[in-house]
Amino acid sequence: MEGTSFLPLLRVAICGGTHGNEMSGVYMVKEMQRQKVERAGSFSVTTVLTNPRATDACKRYIDTDLNRCFTNTLLSTPITDSTPYELRRAHELNSQLGPKGSEEAVDLICDIHNTTANMGLCLIFYSLDWVPLHIYKYLQSKITSVPVRAVQLDIPMAEAFSLEAVGKHGFAMEIGPQPNGVVRADIFNIVKEARDLTIEWVQLFNSGSTFEGGEVEAFTFMKSIDYPRDPTTSEITAAIHPELQDNDFKLLRPGDPIFLSFSGETVKYEGEETYPFFVNECAYYEKKIAFHLAQKVTLTLPSINVK
Amino acid sequence: MEGTSFLPLLRVAICGGTHGNEMSGVYMVKEMQRQKVERAGSFSVTTVLTNPRATDACKRYIDTDLNRCFTNTLLSTPITDSTPYELRRAHELNSQLGPKGSEEAVDLICDIHNTTANMGLCLIFYSLDWVPLHIYKYLQSKITSVPVRAVQLDIPMAEAFSLEAVGKHGFAMEIGPQPNGVVRADIFNIVKEARDLTIEWVQLFNSGSTFEGGEVEAFTFMKSIDYPRDPTTSEITAAIHPELQDNDFKLLRPGDPIFLSFSGETVKYEGEETYPFFVNECAYYEKKIAFHLAQKVTLTLPSINVK
Repeated sequence: MEGTSFLPLLRVAICGGTHGNEMSGVYMVKEMQRQKVERAGSFSVTTVLTNPRATDACKRYIDTDLNRCFTNTLLSTPITDSTPYELRRAHELNSQLGPKGSEEAVDLICDIHNTTANMGLCLIFYSLDWVPLHIYKYLQSKITSVPVRAVQLDIPMAEAFSLEAVGKHGFAMEIGPQPNGVVRADIFNIVKEARDLTIEWVQLFNSGSTFEGGEVEAFTFMKSIDYPRDPTTSEITAAIHPELQDNDFKLLRPGDPIFLSFSGETVKYEGEETYPFFVNECAYYEKKIAFHLAQKVTLTLPSINVK
Repeated sequence: MEGTSFLPLLRVAICGGTHGNEMSGVYMVKEMQRQKVERAGSFSVTTVLTNPRATDACKRYIDTDLNRCFTNTLLSTPITDSTPYELRRAHELNSQLGPKGSEEAVDLICDIHNTTANMGLCLIFYSLDWVPLHIYKYLQSKITSVPVRAVQLDIPMAEAFSLEAVGKHGFAMEIGPQPNGVVRADIFNIVKEARDLTIEWVQLFNSGSTFEGGEVEAFTFMKSIDYPRDPTTSEITAAIHPELQDNDFKLLRPGDPIFLSFSGETVKYEGEETYPFFVNECAYYEKKIAFHLAQKVTLTLPSINVK
């Protein structure tokens, strides 16, 4: 596989609070702003508390999920008096960090998220972009305290709905388990380590280091599974089974228990072998998602360096 | 110590959703209502979803913390158009399950709560009431999957602010760790075991069993500790230290680390030996409480039986 070159990454944005109750990103951005971090060697660092009203309210969002607002369609919808707060905010962020898909967009966006699922450190990105994939490979080689994994969403950039899609390159950094509204030092320290290593990688890249190609493992989204529900009330009637709880990214086989009903019955998995993730994520109850299922794929990266 | 007699416990209330995002109680009450549980042998069982609007919104509360509304003063404040929803609801619950301090009150209230703190199963009650203390002793002798502890609040009944104070006897059942808005099967199963054992105890008590006296250990509230804060913005600048996180009820000694600042400095505990609890409880951030401190006491119970 031939090596690939990219322009230097001169403008990096580190974002948090896109979901206002995911506290690692909120406190990381506030701490960096307190310390007035604006540069790292060869590049500028912009820190953005992306959903300040939701952060103040310690809620995921005020009107609608900000991290679903960055599709080309929504970013080109005119703003009116009845536009939800988060869509208005998405337009502002697109002006500040984008516009999405343009030459003016920042070079790299890292958006920090938390999950109540036991996902360790998980990078999420769209398509096959070698820059975040190489950052992933670098983080995986350096971080030993927690598993480092990647989820790739196979969605065209026009339909990419989350903040990191506004940058020329970008990824979401998802860390868990951490309850919403709570900051845990152990999780915060993993975010700090991942942030420092990302900055280190960009510095090495800009200064001419070649990052060797190779294989990395990633998970690709297949589908979502809802909770069992009462047919009359639509209320959920079961929780994630203890054998699945906290076992994100562990192979799930047909016949494995997935739910334990409140009255004590076990529900078993039917289907092909797969890898569950976002298992018992708090925010997905309202989306009717108990967990996602993924396939494991091996990606072959080219070596990359700066143009 | 002489034995003590109590009238039979003919009306028991099992409550959940007092905080609408603490899901063990919400789903326990909904499941018992689905199964139409209304009696257990010698006594009636009333199940109450106590804060339905907060439960629907999956929030702790709508206007104000319902579980601080049951003081005699607040329960005798006239209701007006501007009365907060939860205070209105407290009056309704006082009519349904009380009135507090009267002969008409239900005999026993068990109110189910969750915490993000690693508190295991913790019974909370006011004063020295031998009925909940004997239930505590019974649960402690039967439950092996998780530590069972008790916190005693030394507050006169007139000022007792939480729902269980409305019954002739009562206790809050606090179980964690569980994130707000999430139901975990392992935690739900502990609640179910504790509920079943409470019902079993009441049946044994009503049918004439004598419960032998003896010593039990409990924790009494001393004071609360706030997070370190930025003097200008009042924002918190540290998280609970990893050595304290998840170590509720473990002896804290002078010099032990209690906070780790976002910039990496450790804050050490100064003061007498004590036992922290509600360590990193989500709902206490807004109350400016990082954790509570307790003293450990030994309580001597008399034997009790039915009159």
